[in-house]
Amino acid sequence: MTTTPLWSSIAETLRAEIAAGQFRPGDRLPTEAALARRFGVNRHTVRHALSGLVEDGTVTTRRGAGAFVTRPATDYPLGKRVRFHQNLAAAGRLPEKVFLHIDTRHADPDEAEALSLPPGARVHRAEGISLADGLPIAHFISTFPADSLPDLPEHLRRTGSVTQALAACGVPDYIRAVTRLSARRATAMQARHLMLREGDPVLQSLGINHGPDGQPVEFGRTVFVGDHVTLIMSQDG
Amino acid sequence: MTTTPLWSSIAETLRAEIAAGQFRPGDRLPTEAALARRFGVNRHTVRHALSGLVEDGTVTTRRGAGAFVTRPATDYPLGKRVRFHQNLAAAGRLPEKVFLHIDTRHADPDEAEALSLPPGARVHRAEGISLADGLPIAHFISTFPADSLPDLPEHLRRTGSVTQALAACGVPDYIRAVTRLSARRATAMQARHLMLREGDPVLQSLGINHGPDGQPVEFGRTVFVGDHVTLIMSQDG
Repeated sequence: MTTTPLWSSIAETLRAEIAAGQFRPGDRLPTEAALARRFGVNRHTVRHALSGLVEDGTVTTRRGAGAFVTRPATDYPLGKRVRFHQNLAAAGRLPEKVFLHIDTRHADPDEAEALSLPPGARVHRAEGISLADGLPIAHFISTFPADSLPDLPEHLRRTGSVTQALAACGVPDYIRAVTRLSARRATAMQARHLMLREGDPVLQSLGINHGPDGQPVEFGRTVFVGDHVTLIMSQDG
Repeated sequence: MTTTPLWSSIAETLRAEIAAGQFRPGDRLPTEAALARRFGVNRHTVRHALSGLVEDGTVTTRRGAGAFVTRPATDYPLGKRVRFHQNLAAAGRLPEKVFLHIDTRHADPDEAEALSLPPGARVHRAEGISLADGLPIAHFISTFPADSLPDLPEHLRRTGSVTQALAACGVPDYIRAVTRLSARRATAMQARHLMLREGDPVLQSLGINHGPDGQPVEFGRTVFVGDHVTLIMSQDG
């Protein structure tokens, strides 16, 4: 007589609840401790059940954040215009941008070159995390010329939006001039911000954006969660 | 009295020869066996010296291919027009495309959708490797509608070029309609083709290209070596 192993029947139960819509794509599953209580088993058995769900793609784990019902990758349009909130909202995701740190300092050589500034010119630097539906999808460091945009930091802090802060500084429009994309392994710091494991694949974007007068207004260094974000380029962008 | 370890002085010698241009970016270094003979040491010592050069970025190793003098990443323009040979030649690289397999079969659901074909329509499928200066930079699987391009396979085999084969079939021009990019871990098969280790980061591109009449002519699934290729998008593409 064969009996179904406990972990397997727990996995089956969770799979059925997900299929029935009790947990929806992007939802966080209860903690291991909560699932252990619910099913009257130890956490080892719960972990075994969850790893079955991870293996078949039903569930995705993010370090320190638990297990989530897998959803399709976030589509992120790489259009002519760089508009984080607008772009993600158009893809049906709830966008959020959190600034971790904003300061003003002397440009490093890469920043000076990207922004066509003389060496040592002053720049504003904003570091932060972009989220979609509450989960981090990107870590960014954006640099802006400080002399031509003196009040940018206060507008970034007030609005939480690069587009709105630039508009408040008299830059009503800006476009993606050049974007360089490559695949990399997440560094320890990036992994921590993006709830990944160190070495997980990330998509690195280095971009220079121009204002209406053709002058560089932003140099952005962004790292997207590799298997959770799809950058989309289309000719009508 | 301190003596310099052998491996360190071998690393120094190679570093100096590279700096002097005796080995140029992209050159393959002599094999471990040859270096061991030259320096009168065992291979373990050579390996120690080489790993020093890998650590400081002077040298890059590719599985099964040996150690190469590191060169800057290959820039690959993601312009409106998809022209492998032209694009790489413009970046100063020697392009080469090797078809591993070309056949004609029924479209799978993804292929049928991408090419706007009815389910089960026939497609040509070409799998191959793109190289720059002799090193693989991408693995691709390209699918083409078979009914509208019956003679494409023979032109692909004859010319070794998608652009030329399409032109010979009466498609003088084609443009990138939509391209989806994400970062992934190389599968075992991709790693073998690209001389990577399984799990190394790769940049995955799914692209649909249209002919002059706006009809899809190619569905391409390409995986680029992550840290060796930079895809470049610019507004004047």
